[in-house]
Amino acid sequence: MKINGKSYKTIWFNNKTLKVNIIDQTLLPFQFKVVEIQNFDEIVLAIKNMQVRGAPLIGATAAYGMYYASLIQQDFSFLKKKAEELKKSRPTAVNLSWAVDRILKVISHVKQDFPKIILQECEKICEEDILICEQIGNHGLEIIKNIQKEKKLKNINILTHCNAGWLATVDWGTATAPIYKAHQNKIPIHIWVDETRPRNQGSALTSYELNHEKIPNTIIADNTGGLLMREGKVDMCIVGTDRVSSNGDVANKIGTYLKALAAFDNKIPFYVALPSTTIDWSLSSGNDIPIEERSSLELSQMTGLDKLGKLQKINIYPKESKSLNFAFDVTPAKYITGFITERGICEANTNSLKKLFSL
Amino acid sequence: MKINGKSYKTIWFNNKTLKVNIIDQTLLPFQFKVVEIQNFDEIVLAIKNMQVRGAPLIGATAAYGMYYASLIQQDFSFLKKKAEELKKSRPTAVNLSWAVDRILKVISHVKQDFPKIILQECEKICEEDILICEQIGNHGLEIIKNIQKEKKLKNINILTHCNAGWLATVDWGTATAPIYKAHQNKIPIHIWVDETRPRNQGSALTSYELNHEKIPNTIIADNTGGLLMREGKVDMCIVGTDRVSSNGDVANKIGTYLKALAAFDNKIPFYVALPSTTIDWSLSSGNDIPIEERSSLELSQMTGLDKLGKLQKINIYPKESKSLNFAFDVTPAKYITGFITERGICEANTNSLKKLFSL
Repeated sequence: MKINGKSYKTIWFNNKTLKVNIIDQTLLPFQFKVVEIQNFDEIVLAIKNMQVRGAPLIGATAAYGMYYASLIQQDFSFLKKKAEELKKSRPTAVNLSWAVDRILKVISHVKQDFPKIILQECEKICEEDILICEQIGNHGLEIIKNIQKEKKLKNINILTHCNAGWLATVDWGTATAPIYKAHQNKIPIHIWVDETRPRNQGSALTSYELNHEKIPNTIIADNTGGLLMREGKVDMCIVGTDRVSSNGDVANKIGTYLKALAAFDNKIPFYVALPSTTIDWSLSSGNDIPIEERSSLELSQMTGLDKLGKLQKINIYPKESKSLNFAFDVTPAKYITGFITERGICEANTNSLKKLFSL
Repeated sequence: MKINGKSYKTIWFNNKTLKVNIIDQTLLPFQFKVVEIQNFDEIVLAIKNMQVRGAPLIGATAAYGMYYASLIQQDFSFLKKKAEELKKSRPTAVNLSWAVDRILKVISHVKQDFPKIILQECEKICEEDILICEQIGNHGLEIIKNIQKEKKLKNINILTHCNAGWLATVDWGTATAPIYKAHQNKIPIHIWVDETRPRNQGSALTSYELNHEKIPNTIIADNTGGLLMREGKVDMCIVGTDRVSSNGDVANKIGTYLKALAAFDNKIPFYVALPSTTIDWSLSSGNDIPIEERSSLELSQMTGLDKLGKLQKINIYPKESKSLNFAFDVTPAKYITGFITERGICEANTNSLKKLFSL
């Protein structure tokens, strides 16, 4: 997708410098900066500090982490250790484990050329992610068209939470892929963008990417979605996810559960868009998904531009005030209208998921 | 209640200077400043700019507005006009109308001494508000005791949204009155304080007043309550309200509805604390309550301390990003466990309300 009219992906490898290029997402929306990464530790830090974030992009980045690990030592058991280190960098998104396990599998039967083989697999993971997200877009587009037709809407209002946009993947996004497809198909859409406290990925990233693609959008406080739904101002919700258990429960950015409850209460379709790599077939319930607790500073400190246009970090409440910061919550499957995956649409339950993925 | 160990009320009249003293709540929690108000226009501005806020305190302040109006002209039809002006300063809280109408009623049968008579009524409104809130505290304390007993809890976790604390009333608060009473009765309590975007009255005011009363509390993003409820970390919710329709629907700070849905989904008692002046008997449904839209700058601009300890205002997203800011939402009566009023507890429906207030 585009930033300032130029097409970008969120991650790309430079074959000359052997460096991975990423967009430093902690600086958005105020500064667009491409950062070069050149070793394993920098990959771990980029994931931990959320310079890259979003389940699919975390996966792709972690794969490159395995590439850098293989430059240190071409030894399977060493790489297995490094894989564990990567998995610990963020606990909730299952794509991370999936990506590093995929790399381990590829090298499990070879004896040499680890870096070259891993690098090829990294490129494959990225290319596949783009295709998968575009497929999610195509399937989601059909849902948008149907809702528009059924409700006889001129303009369709979609609410999304956090950033499951192209910045959370390699390109297209998950929740935003249907939105981009609808926009390209000239369906008049407007997006309600949840601010998404505490890190404000909605106002900082989703609104930013939609603005750069010229898609009408309005930032709202996370508190606002319920009122808008009650007033008929939301036609559907689409969110992303960091991990889906096999029964269809969804872990996603904290606050997703509250929006799903409100959508359910107002009979508004609530869809979750995901690549199948986000499904954790090993977990039978969302209650088993680990919920990441992050620094409370993410809640108490805010970054923005002062009146001179300089980037400032401020404390929005006194240091003596205690706070707690969980990054995700779990939405029970019963509140989810359906999943939009690269294979098509399915209901949020074990049978539908298994059927779609022929398990 | 106390600030820095000294007892305060939120509003008091100085008989020597003829000025109304208020705590400028826009400066909290960073600066405690008492501001003197000396005319009608300053009263309107203090309400509009939210130097005073919270339904009961807005009512008390507006009453003093009528006092200053009567200093301009001792004429009933002039004062009626001024009453209308006051009512327009903020649309959602019904206590404002109630207070100025009460003043109008008191002077409707007299011909002179308007300022003196109005001032006496203002003092009465303030004194009554304190008594009413303390009664709410006593009734709410019984609920807390019952929940503690039933669930055999050592420590009781209460979630509240926005600030329905003593800073929102003259003293005690509505939602916080039972909390202060429980604390005084040595019941171990801990309060989950919703940050309450966009104006952060939770982190700025509720946490502030609880800290000064030494009551354990933790600020959470508005998105977090659902997860905590699902995990059994919330034993009950108590919120305030700006207007209750006669069927028991509740208008309160935006986001209240989402917490009520989550409480309902997790079978957690959800109580609304209110003085009976907050009930609008003329409205049969919450859908008829006007919802205030406020400046989107409240969402895009944040105030806090920079690293030098200086108060700074920053823009947290670019000016080209659009945003929308509704201040309240409506929670349907069916999601409310009960009302805690000065007369006692009742269910959220027309019959129970009418019975309690003998209508």
